[in-house]
Amino acid sequence: MTVHQQQGQRPGDTPPEELNRLIGAAAEAAPVLVGSHPSDRASWLELVADRLDAEADNLVPLAAQETHLGVDRLQAELKRTTFQLRLFAQILGDGSFLQATIDHADPAWPMGPRPDLRRMLRPIGPVAVYGASNFPFAFSVAGGDTASALAAGCPVLLKANPSHPELSAATGVYVSEALAEAGAPDGIFAVVMGFETGAALVRDARIRAASFTGSLRGGRALFDLAVSRPDPIPFYGELGSVNPAFVTPDAGAQRADEVAAGFVGSMSLGNGQFCTKPGLLFVPAGSGLEDRVAALAGAGPAAPMLSEHIRSGYSQALEQLAERPGVRVIAGEVDPEGDPAPTILATTVSDLLADSEALTQECFGPAALVVSYTSEEELLAAAQVFEGQLTATIQSSGPEPITSALLDVLTERVGRVVWNGWPTGVSVSYAQHHGGPYPATTSVQTTSVGTAAIDRFLRPVTYQDAPDEVLPPALQEDNPWHLPRRVDGVLQPPE
Amino acid sequence: MTVHQQQGQRPGDTPPEELNRLIGAAAEAAPVLVGSHPSDRASWLELVADRLDAEADNLVPLAAQETHLGVDRLQAELKRTTFQLRLFAQILGDGSFLQATIDHADPAWPMGPRPDLRRMLRPIGPVAVYGASNFPFAFSVAGGDTASALAAGCPVLLKANPSHPELSAATGVYVSEALAEAGAPDGIFAVVMGFETGAALVRDARIRAASFTGSLRGGRALFDLAVSRPDPIPFYGELGSVNPAFVTPDAGAQRADEVAAGFVGSMSLGNGQFCTKPGLLFVPAGSGLEDRVAALAGAGPAAPMLSEHIRSGYSQALEQLAERPGVRVIAGEVDPEGDPAPTILATTVSDLLADSEALTQECFGPAALVVSYTSEEELLAAAQVFEGQLTATIQSSGPEPITSALLDVLTERVGRVVWNGWPTGVSVSYAQHHGGPYPATTSVQTTSVGTAAIDRFLRPVTYQDAPDEVLPPALQEDNPWHLPRRVDGVLQPPE
Repeated sequence: MTVHQQQGQRPGDTPPEELNRLIGAAAEAAPVLVGSHPSDRASWLELVADRLDAEADNLVPLAAQETHLGVDRLQAELKRTTFQLRLFAQILGDGSFLQATIDHADPAWPMGPRPDLRRMLRPIGPVAVYGASNFPFAFSVAGGDTASALAAGCPVLLKANPSHPELSAATGVYVSEALAEAGAPDGIFAVVMGFETGAALVRDARIRAASFTGSLRGGRALFDLAVSRPDPIPFYGELGSVNPAFVTPDAGAQRADEVAAGFVGSMSLGNGQFCTKPGLLFVPAGSGLEDRVAALAGAGPAAPMLSEHIRSGYSQALEQLAERPGVRVIAGEVDPEGDPAPTILATTVSDLLADSEALTQECFGPAALVVSYTSEEELLAAAQVFEGQLTATIQSSGPEPITSALLDVLTERVGRVVWNGWPTGVSVSYAQHHGGPYPATTSVQTTSVGTAAIDRFLRPVTYQDAPDEVLPPALQEDNPWHLPRRVDGVLQPPE
Repeated sequence: MTVHQQQGQRPGDTPPEELNRLIGAAAEAAPVLVGSHPSDRASWLELVADRLDAEADNLVPLAAQETHLGVDRLQAELKRTTFQLRLFAQILGDGSFLQATIDHADPAWPMGPRPDLRRMLRPIGPVAVYGASNFPFAFSVAGGDTASALAAGCPVLLKANPSHPELSAATGVYVSEALAEAGAPDGIFAVVMGFETGAALVRDARIRAASFTGSLRGGRALFDLAVSRPDPIPFYGELGSVNPAFVTPDAGAQRADEVAAGFVGSMSLGNGQFCTKPGLLFVPAGSGLEDRVAALAGAGPAAPMLSEHIRSGYSQALEQLAERPGVRVIAGEVDPEGDPAPTILATTVSDLLADSEALTQECFGPAALVVSYTSEEELLAAAQVFEGQLTATIQSSGPEPITSALLDVLTERVGRVVWNGWPTGVSVSYAQHHGGPYPATTSVQTTSVGTAAIDRFLRPVTYQDAPDEVLPPALQEDNPWHLPRRVDGVLQPPE
């Protein structure tokens, strides 16, 4: 049991001495993990996935109670979470994540004789993972960061999100038990709690990297701690995004009903509590899209937010947005008595350009801003006001000249461009990228979703002229692990 | 001409308005580079290499005059530099640096229907490169950072090292002319000068990444600026390293002459002005290695340092080291009147363990510390005092039990482990890794030497359900660039 919890009480903050003990155990587990076989780690992840699936009837009601999310959504999210664990198990089997690279000694190498050089990636060391509030399974205790760090061979100290402590504690117990039963080393995983605990974690010299999903303010504060250490460490923060969507003139004319329905479905999914929620929709003036969106959203149900903290933050952000010059409320209420329902505001590109910082702030909840444009020049100008985003969406109908210009502007700013779809529902796969320039993330070159997420927790080491008997198996001449490797510059498929 | 230079005068600091203009030009070049074909960039790099080779008779004497390095060494370094440019041209042809990854839509994907997702790497944007003092070609104006950034498709603002301004200006002119003749876009490359210029560069919002080779103090100051921006950017700093070398009992007994000669050759190469200079040599007490090293080093010639600034820094560091308790000078002089000659200090592991911070400081110049150990336990304890290092060296003779324990301790701390060789002379190749945990670098996951250096200047973007006609060629279904790609999870060789 890794959580400080008296029987019958809510889990409490991890005391400093307990935190110290847990980080010490993680640091002791780290070299054991360095020496572990990827297929062993794969079996650990699979057993964790099996255990979480088996505990669904315990976990989902607990999650529903603490997060107010629906049971269907939570069941699907748990399925996604265990799929993710199994997908990382699969790429451990493939082995290309090690990026094993061998240059044989070459006396004729043009810059001068080359020694034998062999490089591979190895685990970065103990990792601090900060769980998110809005995905109590997929971005929390057993979520993608935990899965990718364990897959990489890094012990994980999981700082639980305060919005679902009971679920975090329960998930932590199942994960820890499954890892122990699977034969993983002691100290490989622990759940810790408390605000001060989170700050202490990222400053601890034994922690070698950190990942975070949450607010811009909280994420930047932890990033600042990570990079101001005597020895700065990588901090992978996913902070926030407004995910603008752009409807071209043709799409507005030809598919207005479909676009309106898709947009309202996406912005209100999970009560708007997704980092990929489309927060702005650019529509051709006169297309009728504004009215269609308002009508559909206005009929949407009210639903409780994840927490009172998030509800009050949402109300405040929405109120500020509604008070800006040129902004009108066209569906829903800005200050409802109880749970919020989908709420749509509207403005024009010229008002947006005059007040772009305020009108492009993230409003975490079921609100969005519909922005009318009157020319393609306006549309392109609007696309250029955005800072870094996780996603941008283009709704187009066939080959319009505007779309390639728009695509160029958007790929400059975002991690993922969605074409005639919607950004919520982030598939976990090989080609997924869930990231983007700051402030979407603090690390523009990495993803927190998909198999490439493992790269965050690995670092290279090169062996020069080392004899086979001291090399790790991944670099031994006869390739005992049957890995794909790059040999003398040429990529060789696995044998 | 990118350098602010009146006829007959030394190049001066770049005025702020000129810097602003050059960064603006780089920002305008960036989207042109995003759209450039890798094979075009390859031809630009090749033409730059050809031009530099053709100008060797102009460049080498200038370099010799400003750096006091020998002509043979400088000719070899220029060869290495142009080889490096051509090697990046070659990997642009291979195309795997794009990491093109395609997941076709899959309605049966276990976590739920998967859209079509296609990811590739794209240029990160304009890059600031800070040239080093000690490699006036290979880590300066046309060095590895410039080569890898241009290969990635990023415009480069090159902050010249103040120790060789004339060479930097001349190299900059040749590079700019060659790029222009090759048809590269305006704004792709410029040399700038001045301390304030360097600070302004890394803070400029248009600069998207920075790379640096130099001192811990200078590098950390620029790193701190980079990460405290409103929008932090990646900062790839290579700061310093003492590169400890460990002689096992058997190697000390069997190969003492060879080890002593190799060590003195490596620590005195380039007058000790390499970031990979082995600064400490751990030897078995009673092996006679201390005397052998002293004798060889004591016979080494004095030579001028790169600059008066570096000479005075070296004298100061050496003096501080020599004054520590238990440290003896066994060859050379601590405070020579003129140019320094190889200087060897000696101590024991027990004195080192008692004063490890002071005795493991980098002393940039031809000095090294020989440390005697009396047991394998002492040797392992000594290996554990080191912070992050670029390299560590093991001199072993066959399968001794101590070596695998030593290797485990060292790979935890370093970027490259050298076996029965010496760390200077960093080959540029596919498997090279020139990096390591802080303070060796500010970015433990990247290298500044070898083909993997290109990764620093790329970031991913994913296209979801985008039709073929708007996708970049690298991601189009029929693979018009014949790239190696990962398709539905399976690595596919180029067609």
